[in-house]
Amino acid sequence: MESLQNPTEEQQAILSKTCPWPNNQDSTNNCKLGAGGFVLVHAGAGYHSESKAKEYKHVCKRACQQAVDQLKAGALAVEAVAAALVELENSPFTNAGMGSNLNLSGEIECDASIMEGKSLHYGAVGAISGIKNPVLVAKRLLSEAQKGKLSAGRIPPCFLVGRGAHDWAISHDVPPCPSEKMATKFSLSAYKRNKRKMEIAEKMDTGQNQIKRRRQSSANKNISSLSAVQENGSECLDTVGAVVIDLQGNVAAAVSSGGLAMKHPGRVGQAAHYGCGCWAENARNMNQYSTAVSTSGCGEHLIRTMLARECATSMQSEDSHQALLEAMQNMFIGSPFLANEDRVLGGVIVLRCCRCAESQPSPNIQGPLVEFLWSHTTESMCVGYMSAQDSKAKTHISRLPPGTIPGQSLAIEGGVCRLMSTVD
Amino acid sequence: MESLQNPTEEQQAILSKTCPWPNNQDSTNNCKLGAGGFVLVHAGAGYHSESKAKEYKHVCKRACQQAVDQLKAGALAVEAVAAALVELENSPFTNAGMGSNLNLSGEIECDASIMEGKSLHYGAVGAISGIKNPVLVAKRLLSEAQKGKLSAGRIPPCFLVGRGAHDWAISHDVPPCPSEKMATKFSLSAYKRNKRKMEIAEKMDTGQNQIKRRRQSSANKNISSLSAVQENGSECLDTVGAVVIDLQGNVAAAVSSGGLAMKHPGRVGQAAHYGCGCWAENARNMNQYSTAVSTSGCGEHLIRTMLARECATSMQSEDSHQALLEAMQNMFIGSPFLANEDRVLGGVIVLRCCRCAESQPSPNIQGPLVEFLWSHTTESMCVGYMSAQDSKAKTHISRLPPGTIPGQSLAIEGGVCRLMSTVD
Repeated sequence: MESLQNPTEEQQAILSKTCPWPNNQDSTNNCKLGAGGFVLVHAGAGYHSESKAKEYKHVCKRACQQAVDQLKAGALAVEAVAAALVELENSPFTNAGMGSNLNLSGEIECDASIMEGKSLHYGAVGAISGIKNPVLVAKRLLSEAQKGKLSAGRIPPCFLVGRGAHDWAISHDVPPCPSEKMATKFSLSAYKRNKRKMEIAEKMDTGQNQIKRRRQSSANKNISSLSAVQENGSECLDTVGAVVIDLQGNVAAAVSSGGLAMKHPGRVGQAAHYGCGCWAENARNMNQYSTAVSTSGCGEHLIRTMLARECATSMQSEDSHQALLEAMQNMFIGSPFLANEDRVLGGVIVLRCCRCAESQPSPNIQGPLVEFLWSHTTESMCVGYMSAQDSKAKTHISRLPPGTIPGQSLAIEGGVCRLMSTVD
Repeated sequence: MESLQNPTEEQQAILSKTCPWPNNQDSTNNCKLGAGGFVLVHAGAGYHSESKAKEYKHVCKRACQQAVDQLKAGALAVEAVAAALVELENSPFTNAGMGSNLNLSGEIECDASIMEGKSLHYGAVGAISGIKNPVLVAKRLLSEAQKGKLSAGRIPPCFLVGRGAHDWAISHDVPPCPSEKMATKFSLSAYKRNKRKMEIAEKMDTGQNQIKRRRQSSANKNISSLSAVQENGSECLDTVGAVVIDLQGNVAAAVSSGGLAMKHPGRVGQAAHYGCGCWAENARNMNQYSTAVSTSGCGEHLIRTMLARECATSMQSEDSHQALLEAMQNMFIGSPFLANEDRVLGGVIVLRCCRCAESQPSPNIQGPLVEFLWSHTTESMCVGYMSAQDSKAKTHISRLPPGTIPGQSLAIEGGVCRLMSTVD
């Protein structure tokens, strides 16, 4: 496996490599990635302090291992991606599941979604409380929808929110978890700190001033900003996620988030939004790539730009690195949908692979090429990746180049992984 | 105004007409549609019984009039579209606001969203109870987000759900309405009837049979189906909406729904889903059309195909009629996202217009061409339309051709309207 933090020309050539197999040879049924698959995870785009770097990397490592264990046991991508997410949600250091940000009322409300590239089915929950692993509810919604219609011809839901989502989860054997157990010492103290900051800010911003200031950009340094708290290294901005390709060449993606700190109760971010939090689509013909994307960052920015789906669509271009760079620049930082935003905050992890892996021109070529990339406009993004051949995951905290401005610049890195193949 | 139920060649030529003004002439600032604008509304794609046709048409007429009154008073498209929606929501005959379908628990939970083509801002509420006009909450979310950041740099939400959405609405001066006042004699009796049907269906479908049957398609006539109830003429399937162009050439779209009958509490349908329920995008350059779309039908089908945005994107093609036909055929009925669905149920209303209306080659051409279309795969769809020059709205219940199968066939109709212009 090669890391492409600063890709050489040769590596760039690999990144840009297109499916080398002839278009008129339909051998999709013979495809099988012999050695298991690949997973890429993230523990949020935001700010990951050096002091906690070890923790963030460690949880990414464990999440990769969980997914690879599933893949090695023959699980489908959607199972493996859920296993990675459960591990990420269980960590008190990430803003998802356990240790999620508290909302304005001091409660935890989570968003999560999952998508399977083979069936193109999707499940999502929004503003759900009292569930430790929201991704498991999303996954259950997906698998229930795959079973077809409910009694009396009713169409099963793909998206549930709030109390209704919680009750559905319980009735479908997802265990409840008292909200007080999901809050951590860290999330509670962050809530108190943020609340104090808000009170101070609102005292400063009364009456006409408030209206005036609200129309100003957040760059105004006079306003005590929760983002500033995050930049001081005490908080991770948002969201965890993963993308997986399994041994049949199926892709899946998932995302889970506690949402922005001090959000309004009932606010739903990109993690529950179709096309915004995650996307997975198997190749449907020889000319296509299978793609999987998971996003992180400021939910409203990721929703309005529909970033997961845009990045997935861009990945059908020949040069994956260039395509992601252009997608992040033109459809995120420079998006007309965010024209009035001074700082556009988010990150993505992306995976792509030719579906028809084994129809290879030569026995010397050992397997299909998986290309994986990440890009972010936030200060940092923590990622981990692992293939089923690896003994352990690699992790990395990607940071914006020194001197560049978060929300206006981006980092982009990636790698390639040639999976070993066994042709039936 | 011309109705294009069976377009002649000449009318088809008008429908296919592209913006006739040169690309290098940037006269966008001079654009002004002198005589007010245009509105197209729908009262749901589903089944509209002959016995209630008069009521459906009447509410569409009133909704058009409300929007036109706003446009004549100089309101922006987003104001006019909200006014139309309020009228549609207030009708006890539509499945939105008053008279919405009841969910499994016998409660009303509504979804609504609104999008403004100029700012590309968007507001949405999901599974909201106790609010007579959910579209007004969505509109307020949109306008609050346009004001910029909240205190302490917090990003304002664009999507709120459930109890949190209700509380936010009340704190932003949207009046509450007791849920029992929103239910009608009709919605309550439909609930009782549906509940009985479900109980019978579930008794028939126990144990292994249930699992087996759930995997069968809904075409199975042995299962007592709620859809069948709808086909018997007693219920409208889903959703109301509107698209508007104002005198500045701005477009806006909105949608509102009580959701599917007997849905699970907390279920959110396409009406609250970004890109799925409505879409509005002003032209950003001379080569583009401004487009606005609102959808109706089975929420899950409309979500997974992201139909509003797909139709809007398709509208940049030269021939609007052909483009919508292809979008409905390839991206809805034949969508790979709905490959396992035997009946794909939905409808759209679409509006498009060249932005640069007045840069005309000849003084004899009186104004910019607004093209408006509707298409549906459901049994019927009720629409109304009106320009500011009209004394009253035209209404129409579009039906699938006799002998065609709902969910597998489509109807497509439309018209053109040349707005009078006054060049400054």
